Amino acid sequence: MIDNPEILGLFAGFLTAFSTLPQTLKIIYSKKGEDLSGVTLFMLNGSYFLWLVYGIALNLLSVILWNVIALFFGTTLIILKLFVWTNNRPPKNISVP
Amino acid sequence: MIDNPEILGLFAGFLTAFSTLPQTLKIIYSKKGEDLSGVTLFMLNGSYFLWLVYGIALNLLSVILWNVIALFFGTTLIILKLFVWTNNRPPKNISVP
Repeated sequence: MIDNPEILGLFAGFLTAFSTLPQTLKIIYSKKGEDLSGVTLFMLNGSYFLWLVYGIALNLLSVILWNVIALFFGTTLIILKLFVWTNNRPPKNISVP
Repeated sequence: MIDNPEILGLFAGFLTAFSTLPQTLKIIYSKKGEDLSGVTLFMLNGSYFLWLVYGIALNLLSVILWNVIALFFGTTLIILKLFVWTNNRPPKNISVP
């Protein structure tokens, strides 16, 4: 049915690797990340790290490559989230009708 | 160095599968998800779906299992995010000092 599953794997890996990029850009532009779950971000980064070690152990180049990229964006995101972590107040220029 | 990489893979898959669960619980309790990137959620779910098809194509039981679980939580989360999507106003009981 599917001629070449590895093409699928490459595409899936690409999505995995870049999935936290839009969220990273969003938090940079909005400077707000309180709705984000820190636990989820730690679990995502933990999974990227374990997949990376798995890829190194089994010498799987695409697993290594995608998870290095994923870890880069994921780590950036969690650092940004922790920086704006305490931002629980309404922003100063809020207008309440 | 690593005796059994498949143990690592199982653990990594577990983290991947359950990574969106804390975020799902958080959005349920806070009823707020405007800081979440819809694009990121679509990319995550897209990757789970492609990994699932990949696992079916290559008959990889653990890939199938983890990604079915991941899709379940990921889909739940994106539905919740879309339901509270327009919630861009401050909540009614906000207290501004």
